[in-house]
Amino acid sequence: MDVGFIGIGAMGEGMARRLLEARHRLVVYNRTRSKASVLVAEGAAVADKPGDACGGDVVVTMLADDRAVEDLFVGGDLLSAFRPDTVHISMSTISVALSERLTAMHDEAGRAFLAAPVFGRPDAAAAGKLFVMAAGPENLITRSQPLFDAMGQRTFVVGEKQPQANVVKLAGNFLIASVLESLGEAFALIRKSDVDVHRFLEILTETLFSAPIYKTYGTLIADEKYEPAGFKMSLGLKDIRLALAAAEAKTVPMPVASLVKDNLLAGIAQGEGDSDWSALARVIARNAGLA
Amino acid sequence: MDVGFIGIGAMGEGMARRLLEARHRLVVYNRTRSKASVLVAEGAAVADKPGDACGGDVVVTMLADDRAVEDLFVGGDLLSAFRPDTVHISMSTISVALSERLTAMHDEAGRAFLAAPVFGRPDAAAAGKLFVMAAGPENLITRSQPLFDAMGQRTFVVGEKQPQANVVKLAGNFLIASVLESLGEAFALIRKSDVDVHRFLEILTETLFSAPIYKTYGTLIADEKYEPAGFKMSLGLKDIRLALAAAEAKTVPMPVASLVKDNLLAGIAQGEGDSDWSALARVIARNAGLA
Amino acid sequence: MDVGFIGIGAMGEGMARRLLEARHRLVVYNRTRSKASVLVAEGAAVADKPGDACGGDVVVTMLADDRAVEDLFVGGDLLSAFRPDTVHISMSTISVALSERLTAMHDEAGRAFLAAPVFGRPDAAAAGKLFVMAAGPENLITRSQPLFDAMGQRTFVVGEKQPQANVVKLAGNFLIASVLESLGEAFALIRKSDVDVHRFLEILTETLFSAPIYKTYGTLIADEKYEPAGFKMSLGLKDIRLALAAAEAKTVPMPVASLVKDNLLAGIAQGEGDSDWSALARVIARNAGLA
Amino acid sequence: MDVGFIGIGAMGEGMARRLLEARHRLVVYNRTRSKASVLVAEGAAVADKPGDACGGDVVVTMLADDRAVEDLFVGGDLLSAFRPDTVHISMSTISVALSERLTAMHDEAGRAFLAAPVFGRPDAAAAGKLFVMAAGPENLITRSQPLFDAMGQRTFVVGEKQPQANVVKLAGNFLIASVLESLGEAFALIRKSDVDVHRFLEILTETLFSAPIYKTYGTLIADEKYEPAGFKMSLGLKDIRLALAAAEAKTVPMPVASLVKDNLLAGIAQGEGDSDWSALARVIARNAGLA
Repeated sequence: MDVGFIGIGAMGEGMARRLLEARHRLVVYNRTRSKASVLVAEGAAVADKPGDACGGDVVVTMLADDRAVEDLFVGGDLLSAFRPDTVHISMSTISVALSERLTAMHDEAGRAFLAAPVFGRPDAAAAGKLFVMAAGPENLITRSQPLFDAMGQRTFVVGEKQPQANVVKLAGNFLIASVLESLGEAFALIRKSDVDVHRFLEILTETLFSAPIYKTYGTLIADEKYEPAGFKMSLGLKDIRLALAAAEAKTVPMPVASLVKDNLLAGIAQGEGDSDWSALARVIARNAGLA
Repeated sequence: MDVGFIGIGAMGEGMARRLLEARHRLVVYNRTRSKASVLVAEGAAVADKPGDACGGDVVVTMLADDRAVEDLFVGGDLLSAFRPDTVHISMSTISVALSERLTAMHDEAGRAFLAAPVFGRPDAAAAGKLFVMAAGPENLITRSQPLFDAMGQRTFVVGEKQPQANVVKLAGNFLIASVLESLGEAFALIRKSDVDVHRFLEILTETLFSAPIYKTYGTLIADEKYEPAGFKMSLGLKDIRLALAAAEAKTVPMPVASLVKDNLLAGIAQGEGDSDWSALARVIARNAGLA
Repeated sequence: MDVGFIGIGAMGEGMARRLLEARHRLVVYNRTRSKASVLVAEGAAVADKPGDACGGDVVVTMLADDRAVEDLFVGGDLLSAFRPDTVHISMSTISVALSERLTAMHDEAGRAFLAAPVFGRPDAAAAGKLFVMAAGPENLITRSQPLFDAMGQRTFVVGEKQPQANVVKLAGNFLIASVLESLGEAFALIRKSDVDVHRFLEILTETLFSAPIYKTYGTLIADEKYEPAGFKMSLGLKDIRLALAAAEAKTVPMPVASLVKDNLLAGIAQGEGDSDWSALARVIARNAGLA
Repeated sequence: MDVGFIGIGAMGEGMARRLLEARHRLVVYNRTRSKASVLVAEGAAVADKPGDACGGDVVVTMLADDRAVEDLFVGGDLLSAFRPDTVHISMSTISVALSERLTAMHDEAGRAFLAAPVFGRPDAAAAGKLFVMAAGPENLITRSQPLFDAMGQRTFVVGEKQPQANVVKLAGNFLIASVLESLGEAFALIRKSDVDVHRFLEILTETLFSAPIYKTYGTLIADEKYEPAGFKMSLGLKDIRLALAAAEAKTVPMPVASLVKDNLLAGIAQGEGDSDWSALARVIARNAGLA
């Protein structure tokens, strides 16, 4: 397919490369052009401005936050550069409110829209091992499946309304954060009880908690290895805020999310915003007089 | 081995039966004698009083709570009924403080003591599929290994000090409870966002949260099936209290544990003490105006 | 002075009337014109549009929320209707962020600006008994003092930067909400401990807690009289959100504010948004099994 | 009256002295005898053992904690030293559970019992300015009134069941702690918002929060003066634990109490157990990156 890919960051680069490997034709755009240029050797064309990436079958956006998306679709008028049959696939982690707004805008403009945020870190993006959560009209998802297959190991269809995918993504990130918080508390107790933390982690992950999330983050916390960051605490805070905003919009109290938000703020206030967000466990350890 | 088994409840019955199947000789004791008698057909002798179960190589205690253990060893003087070389294996979920006290008492009396609490519900006990977390002198653990092998699918050696096993057990139960709380919050958001909860659960358990704990409890919560209870909310509260008590003794703040305790109290205050402790999610749903 | 008064709601009406009584000349504006008209009998002129109220010495805005203020100054261009020497006194409870924005806009336009939010409910407004917290250039505060004297029983100068007054107002409202939450918890304990709640309240307010806030709200909670609302729970939630937003902007964790927010959401989710915000105590009572 | 006074600590000394000044005859006992001896010059007799202070009309106990009371009445058998008509007035801050137990013990032994804990710090005790909260049989309270009048500025009759006074005392201390927590959060926001904290405090205490509790503790927090301690953080934690224990016994969730407990633990874990408990605000400030 002819694909425009907007947003060549840590995630986007790997995703775009996977599309190229699957022999799709790519026009890529990034605000900092040099980041897009790395894909030229592999066959991508680089667009001078976002609109130049919108003339194909599909436009994928993979941007850092709501603001970056709004710059294009609310501040700018990127939709006017779309062909009538271009499908916009928004894969960024954005707010449910913005996804609702984008859905309405595309409807009004008669343009096709999918929300398809992903689970996975940059290494999973590079390996095509992302999990894709897609929502929107079924036929559009079907049409886009070859792209999802190139970028992800599996696609889940969340529903027919695009914002449903975004809320699932945010709820998932909240669950990860809650695991960081709970592990942090458990590890603080374990350390002050004079039990070997790696032994404890082994017991967890070989019994009831045998999920990647416990293995990956449990090891970071047991090793107290929070730098370099895989996913920065400041970005983690952003995602928890989005989850809380979605919850408030639906009048849902989420006390653990609130608690995690406050502890992330504490970490950032104490200078850890650029550490991995699992350093939440260090904030907790400090409150226990450790470290 | 000659084994005395004290405490034939939902867990103890399955564990004792496994020992009989492995051809150990059992004298069993239960306060309500009829519960012990079910094991006679399979070869167990029934003791009239606890002391009559203490003349063998090993005494296993599998009791409901601190009080039941204290009745035997603090209020009563069960240790005096032990042979000099009898090993006491405490498999109950008890407080760290009581485990410390038992350790000191056995030391003083020159008796051998192991703490070996387990992960697993009654069905796992019946199937010999428990996870055993043992702490105490290494040679005692080695000597007891055939018993652990009969009752569990795997034994983890936590350390040389008995209470270490108890704190690991309590930290583990806290982590389970924190999963219930977090899932409850996420599901409330998901339900009010008009996403299918079973779809959401599938996405979780097929991606980052592919652990038994999420599958088992996630299904209960998605189905809102909290009765009959696998593990009662009132018992869950007891365990969270023990975790918090252990944390306070070590001066460790555990805000998620506190929050879970308060929500369990809310559930019990509203009449759900006999529901499964995953009904924590129903307390949360109610706060979101659901149910 | 010649005063334009924009926003004749429950608070604004009493405030404007006090200004008229102090013989200031008023042009009043309200989106729903009929609310402004009630002041005609007392000498106020009614403006057809907001700009018509901006030709005097001072413009007072007393609006419901950020959006209402933004409609005038961001969406609309009300500043262009000001005389060069008109002073804008913003008395609404608005976000710190909007106050910062208004400050910058007035600076740019060369217009004089004060933030002067108030403590007090409609009855205090009608009686001229508000507390005014003013921030901005000292000479402007001095010049505006006669107006503050007409509307309030006392004026506090917070500082020279306008948003400082807004953060003080929000911090104050947070403290009120925290009193509601804490009283709610204490009363639940007291009620379930079979102590007379009015006796308890008397002890509090005649000893360490002899402040209006405890007397007023303590009585509402002891009487469980949450309707009709003096200040609606939905508005309380709005203010707590503004406090939390100000705190996030400064990277300050506020766990009690988070907890209050979640309990207000629980109340609103259960249909109490139009009750007095002290019904927070009813949410807490319900969690204790008291209905 | 002939009064035995057991427990001559920081509070007890002032209280006993006030009784002497009111011309009651005192036999005083303290475990560390030297603390009791300071009252000899003012006419008190010093008992060699607790039982020697129990032969009069009244025995007042003013002890540090549950354990000290249990040593006398549960471990020891002090009641047997009472005259048949001796009234025991327990003025210590103890658990509701212990008060219930003492009530039952006195009933069984046919001895008269009042619970009469107090609000006030050592300076108020020395000045006879305590607030006394008395519960128990009305005729006993009437009979004891002269003693209460000597020690306190006012007596509140809580009810006829002794533990009611203890729950009121604990609920009151919880409310004080919640004020510390809330002020701490508000001050952190205010400080990072570049508003003068003393100005802020003045606004609070001259408007809605004009209660001693805000003036006294607000000043400590604004001045960041947490040493020397008026009431140690470690003792504050003890009282919050007693409040939470009372709440758990009645199945009442108290999330602010839980939150305060966790923050007190954090302070103590970081070495502040001997600071004034208002240093809770320093824990909060640190989480905001201040101090």
